Amino acid sequence: MMESSAETAITFGDLDPMGIVWHGNYVKFLELGREAFGREHGIDAMEMYGQGFFTPIVRVTIEHKAMLAYGDTVVVRARLRPSPAAKIIFHYELLRKRDGVTVATAETVQVFLDRDRKLMLDVPGFFRAWLDQHKPD
Amino acid sequence: MMESSAETAITFGDLDPMGIVWHGNYVKFLELGREAFGREHGIDAMEMYGQGFFTPIVRVTIEHKAMLAYGDTVVVRARLRPSPAAKIIFHYELLRKRDGVTVATAETVQVFLDRDRKLMLDVPGFFRAWLDQHKPD
Amino acid sequence: MMESSAETAITFGDLDPMGIVWHGNYVKFLELGREAFGREHGIDAMEMYGQGFFTPIVRVTIEHKAMLAYGDTVVVRARLRPSPAAKIIFHYELLRKRDGVTVATAETVQVFLDRDRKLMLDVPGFFRAWLDQHKPD
Amino acid sequence: MMESSAETAITFGDLDPMGIVWHGNYVKFLELGREAFGREHGIDAMEMYGQGFFTPIVRVTIEHKAMLAYGDTVVVRARLRPSPAAKIIFHYELLRKRDGVTVATAETVQVFLDRDRKLMLDVPGFFRAWLDQHKPD
Repeated sequence: MMESSAETAITFGDLDPMGIVWHGNYVKFLELGREAFGREHGIDAMEMYGQGFFTPIVRVTIEHKAMLAYGDTVVVRARLRPSPAAKIIFHYELLRKRDGVTVATAETVQVFLDRDRKLMLDVPGFFRAWLDQHKPD
Repeated sequence: MMESSAETAITFGDLDPMGIVWHGNYVKFLELGREAFGREHGIDAMEMYGQGFFTPIVRVTIEHKAMLAYGDTVVVRARLRPSPAAKIIFHYELLRKRDGVTVATAETVQVFLDRDRKLMLDVPGFFRAWLDQHKPD
Repeated sequence: MMESSAETAITFGDLDPMGIVWHGNYVKFLELGREAFGREHGIDAMEMYGQGFFTPIVRVTIEHKAMLAYGDTVVVRARLRPSPAAKIIFHYELLRKRDGVTVATAETVQVFLDRDRKLMLDVPGFFRAWLDQHKPD
Repeated sequence: MMESSAETAITFGDLDPMGIVWHGNYVKFLELGREAFGREHGIDAMEMYGQGFFTPIVRVTIEHKAMLAYGDTVVVRARLRPSPAAKIIFHYELLRKRDGVTVATAETVQVFLDRDRKLMLDVPGFFRAWLDQHKPD
């Protein structure tokens, strides 16, 4: 299973008046995990962009299951889920480092836009080659 | 149909290297719409909190359909979708003000926690009364 | 006196565990005021960028004098302070709308970089012309 | 010299349309360094809060000297500067990890508020004791 992991410390500015991490900050945690995956496995979004492909997020879903507080560190595990469509789908699990509790699960869907920012209906060659080589399950 | 609307101007800091609003900022736009609804219709989350109820977001889904750029203003329409369960469900439509194009749709689900931060399985009395009075469809 | 004004509603996500706006969010308020000034008086940073000038912030100072809470709206007044140097200096006053109390004052300094991102030691012609025409005091 | 260090990876969402870290995000980097110092040396702001002291930031100044881009990691060094007044003053140096270049320097000033959120004109006993024990220079 291809999975990457990243972590970040919660800071005061992440917290809301309830003393827990404001839910909107989780989107940033997903990005942290997705970029760790990209760097580790050679499909970094900024590199793709350098090659003329723009891969915007078209769908994000986050399920919150527990809370993060001051002093916590969140561990983000990102896993690429293969898709026959011209999409990049990541699944995420966010863990509270001190006790390993799953605080959230999430999914993001990205599409490929070409240099003219038009939607590509077919998987670009470089990504198909990457999939063939790495065979994420 | 009970719906509230709020809007905000896009600023430079909202943009990503592609020159469009970074997807993570949309969570804040949802909050803007949800709070406008709460103030307008008398179910403000902070007021509920003052009464001992904490209503955390447990699920958020955002579908991105078009882009927001510098100079744009985003209009957020929030609508409460009635649920028999002890949940607060909002649906959102985000529009680009200059041309009325839908840039995103979204849904958030909130639950009720009591003073001890325990999940409430039944709709709190004050919210049931609010639903009976307002009958959102 | 050339001054522009913009305002924005405080949302839940702006707040910290003390129930007041987290100080780091004020930088965004300054941007809101600065951009309102730029649009109103024809020296918008993104337009300058389109003309090949990049005007990064090289210094920001914020003095916090009072607090913003949930339900507040912050009014940002931005004023350009003329400088003989090749700099754009803005002064800001941030007011709490409900009572007019000054919650913060601030200053930002921007410089001009050319197309090659090299620091310009002289005021660019277009900006000198703008200054001559508008004579901000 | 009492100094603490923390670091964080730059992510896509930190970047602005110029492809560099948006200046407003630096406030968060300062917090990261300040909290590392607090944890390491026993004057964590949230712990102080638990003891009834609220230490809001009343002044922040950031000088930007170089840029951070995608793939960069920023190292934040925070140092407490002793003050005879009832204030907590931190100095910061932010470095680009790959080449050690100073990207920014900064200063924050915090004051002490008591349980009633009134400004304390004298250094609280616990902080004076901490200063006596640690003698930061």
